[in-house]
Amino acid sequence: MSEVQQVSRRRGGRQARQALRAAPKTEDARPVRAGLDGGSFKPLKESDIFRIHEAALTVLETVGMADAPPSCIDYITKAGGILADNGRLLFPRALVEDTLAKAARKFVLHGQSPEHDLEPWGSKVHFGTAGAAVSIVDPFTKQYRHSNIQDLYDLSRLADRMDNIHFFQRMVVPRDLPEPADMDFNTCYASVSGTTKHVGSSWVNPKHLEKSLEMLHYIAGGEGKWRARPFVSQSNCFVVPPLKFTEDACACLEVAVRGGMPVLLLSAGQAGATSPAALAGCIVQEVAEVLAGLVYVNAIKPGHPAIFGTWPFVSDLRTGAMSGGSGEQALLSAACGQMAQFYDLTGGAPAGMTDSKLPDAQGGYEKGYNHALAANSGLNMIYESAGMHASLLGACFESLVIDNDSIGAVLRTVRGIEISEDSLSVEAIRQVCTQGPGHFLGHDQTLSLMETEYVYPQVGDRTSPKEWVEQGETDAVEKAHKKVREVLSTHYPRHISDKMDEEIRARFDIKIDRADMTAGNGRWERSA
Amino acid sequence: MSEVQQVSRRRGGRQARQALRAAPKTEDARPVRAGLDGGSFKPLKESDIFRIHEAALTVLETVGMADAPPSCIDYITKAGGILADNGRLLFPRALVEDTLAKAARKFVLHGQSPEHDLEPWGSKVHFGTAGAAVSIVDPFTKQYRHSNIQDLYDLSRLADRMDNIHFFQRMVVPRDLPEPADMDFNTCYASVSGTTKHVGSSWVNPKHLEKSLEMLHYIAGGEGKWRARPFVSQSNCFVVPPLKFTEDACACLEVAVRGGMPVLLLSAGQAGATSPAALAGCIVQEVAEVLAGLVYVNAIKPGHPAIFGTWPFVSDLRTGAMSGGSGEQALLSAACGQMAQFYDLTGGAPAGMTDSKLPDAQGGYEKGYNHALAANSGLNMIYESAGMHASLLGACFESLVIDNDSIGAVLRTVRGIEISEDSLSVEAIRQVCTQGPGHFLGHDQTLSLMETEYVYPQVGDRTSPKEWVEQGETDAVEKAHKKVREVLSTHYPRHISDKMDEEIRARFDIKIDRADMTAGNGRWERSA
Repeated sequence: MSEVQQVSRRRGGRQARQALRAAPKTEDARPVRAGLDGGSFKPLKESDIFRIHEAALTVLETVGMADAPPSCIDYITKAGGILADNGRLLFPRALVEDTLAKAARKFVLHGQSPEHDLEPWGSKVHFGTAGAAVSIVDPFTKQYRHSNIQDLYDLSRLADRMDNIHFFQRMVVPRDLPEPADMDFNTCYASVSGTTKHVGSSWVNPKHLEKSLEMLHYIAGGEGKWRARPFVSQSNCFVVPPLKFTEDACACLEVAVRGGMPVLLLSAGQAGATSPAALAGCIVQEVAEVLAGLVYVNAIKPGHPAIFGTWPFVSDLRTGAMSGGSGEQALLSAACGQMAQFYDLTGGAPAGMTDSKLPDAQGGYEKGYNHALAANSGLNMIYESAGMHASLLGACFESLVIDNDSIGAVLRTVRGIEISEDSLSVEAIRQVCTQGPGHFLGHDQTLSLMETEYVYPQVGDRTSPKEWVEQGETDAVEKAHKKVREVLSTHYPRHISDKMDEEIRARFDIKIDRADMTAGNGRWERSA
Repeated sequence: MSEVQQVSRRRGGRQARQALRAAPKTEDARPVRAGLDGGSFKPLKESDIFRIHEAALTVLETVGMADAPPSCIDYITKAGGILADNGRLLFPRALVEDTLAKAARKFVLHGQSPEHDLEPWGSKVHFGTAGAAVSIVDPFTKQYRHSNIQDLYDLSRLADRMDNIHFFQRMVVPRDLPEPADMDFNTCYASVSGTTKHVGSSWVNPKHLEKSLEMLHYIAGGEGKWRARPFVSQSNCFVVPPLKFTEDACACLEVAVRGGMPVLLLSAGQAGATSPAALAGCIVQEVAEVLAGLVYVNAIKPGHPAIFGTWPFVSDLRTGAMSGGSGEQALLSAACGQMAQFYDLTGGAPAGMTDSKLPDAQGGYEKGYNHALAANSGLNMIYESAGMHASLLGACFESLVIDNDSIGAVLRTVRGIEISEDSLSVEAIRQVCTQGPGHFLGHDQTLSLMETEYVYPQVGDRTSPKEWVEQGETDAVEKAHKKVREVLSTHYPRHISDKMDEEIRARFDIKIDRADMTAGNGRWERSA
């Protein structure tokens, strides 16, 4: 190639690059997106998975569950369960196997906008939030202050704008609403008002859930439309590990199932405290407990959408405190991803928590390896993946933005390496080395891949030290804070129109002012 | 169990716990250590690996390498290589296959202390440093200052005390030594003086290497003892990608091979710049280049220890700048781990770099997912894994300590989940649920596993927000800095005795004062 050709080619390259970057990208052309196929990380061998399954069946058949409330006993004994003399409810192997045969598979988790519908099955990976933090972390002042309903709404609309956060489960407890009825109802309201992504929420009393369902019917345009596209799922702790049902949650579960609301069957044993310290045993107990929940759901209504929510946590055995950022946690969550795939059920587990109180280096690396291993296991629904600190005690706006970048990079690793005649690049190498300029910078292949194969962080910094100094030496928290303010001072979603909101307020006791859900209220506009 | 029994059991538990923690742990009883078996993360399928291998052979056979110096041409054409009319050296498939048949396998990388000997083969994982940073990062002032020979020595002895850093390859360029001869020699001297772990270093001129070998013979106690246990390997960039030999490095390579020094055959193509933007093609070129190096080494001396150093880097294609912290980087390094296992060669690649200029949240998460995926691929030698910033332009003392914790947790994930009758815990679950206290805190299994199965960070913080406030709200950098000062004010290794050092100084031009290598010099004692 002559020098003139090279120059012209390079200029063509620049033009092509500009054109590419100017064109709006469709979801499919993005380098990463919801539902990429994982499964390249397999901490458990196939024989291990089978042994865990067998052990879980033995536990269910011989140890069973304590404290089942009457309606639960009724449903499960009618299905084939046995109430033992010691009061424990036993699950014969055949009952569990029958349940697995009829359990719901390949159900969509809907968004209020269809563009956010999720198909969480196989080894397809989705990241989202979750948690019941009681504090908001201010990384500048290092203060933990009580979280409130406005925070929850703000977190919801911030998550709405984070490309790699695919669903929003409520992150904080609104401590300004001490009445459980207000808290449950307004948690749901604030979440569905802030985002059109699929929402997860939680209720402590079935009456609160019934009222929330009324509101959701209204937002959906009627009960039929809600049931066709339920866009809220219930995060339900039906079990207090080890192996005990909990009455209120069981009551809420029954209402959710009858009300057409998908349920996340959440068992949150903490290894070394409420589940065995041996990681294998911790998984056995998780699987047994969630299978018990699955039997219950399917006894109420066969085929009702239920997420296999094995949520193992880890203890620091020196103190008994939870350690959500540990390597042990990453292993457990990834292994749970494999167990759900074994059952061909939609699996959910936590990954991306940290024990650090701040979005510092520790917060970063703990989230990084947990994201990477859980996602590459092919876990379908990765909860608690963004914004959480102090093993779920604190939520942080800036972290939600920072974690969105970590997740984007990890999703790129889930996507993997494409192998084809073209991508193997023998011809490109030959051209560059024997005819071309000796580098690949302006090569057609490079230009064609730059927007579709490479992920660029939203706030992550890739400048040189020199440029970085010129730009003010900002760290990750400072850059994220700028993004938080940019989004939260402008993005006030109106998928629930002012008119509809007015009618909701007329029927229900909404604890957040509409003015605080409207641009120009001054909350996020003031300078840092 | 009666309440009295429970209490007594709990007390027994505390005593057992104290006894366990007081006893010194042997290396085998540590929850993580050098050489754990990876291989659970497989971004490439077997057929992918074979296609990459085939493509690399085609590249070597038909495109070959440019700019081979005369002695290299001589060695390789005698072995069966062909010098083409265009001056490129071609490697017929049979030559590569013959080389692979006779290449060194299962060679130990020695430490000066045998306790640090590494056995980097199969899918056994080792973490270490590397890099040629030109700056030291001060995370408190956000300054990048020129690195010097004292920094290198200090980094070496800090790494000596970091349990999860298994080898030390020089991290910084001593910019206070502008003469290449001084730089090469003193880099080697400072590194071997600071640590008894295996050292990697680099030379720009064969004469500098010869002089360094003299010193190494002396430290070892004679050339014979050096050759029996060579404790320094040469990091050698024999190739300037794409596919060009570089003369000085080739000369150094030949001296190393003849001198019994293991070589790291390092090809550092940067995807989208000096290697193809398609990740698969980037790996093809890496593999082809390192195979060319392997042919060269084995043509000089069959079976000489050589590390398969496919070091792919990534470009940010918007700017052409290197992005060592990206998700693409994690994929490439992990895939290279798989390629080395395919050839049954000792593989080395980088993981744990970051584009962040500081040990902040970005620095953390980029390191976290890169550590996790490279290690779980079973990559034998993970370079650049600690202390590096700004895509290798800066090295940071505090980061070395922070990264040691990240690596410890990741090594726990490499160790995986033990599956056995005991670990599956059916009996433990039965006891706790039907006879015991309803929790696992004081259970025998928990006590027996707390020191052998769970990794505790050295500086990572797991306190509650309340305790954290009481303890002064320290972040990761502040805690790490304390550790840095604690180690560097006290740990002045004397495996090279004062007497031997004096004799070395009499024979060679050492550019670092012995006083600065001796406790009480005031460098690290002064308050922060």
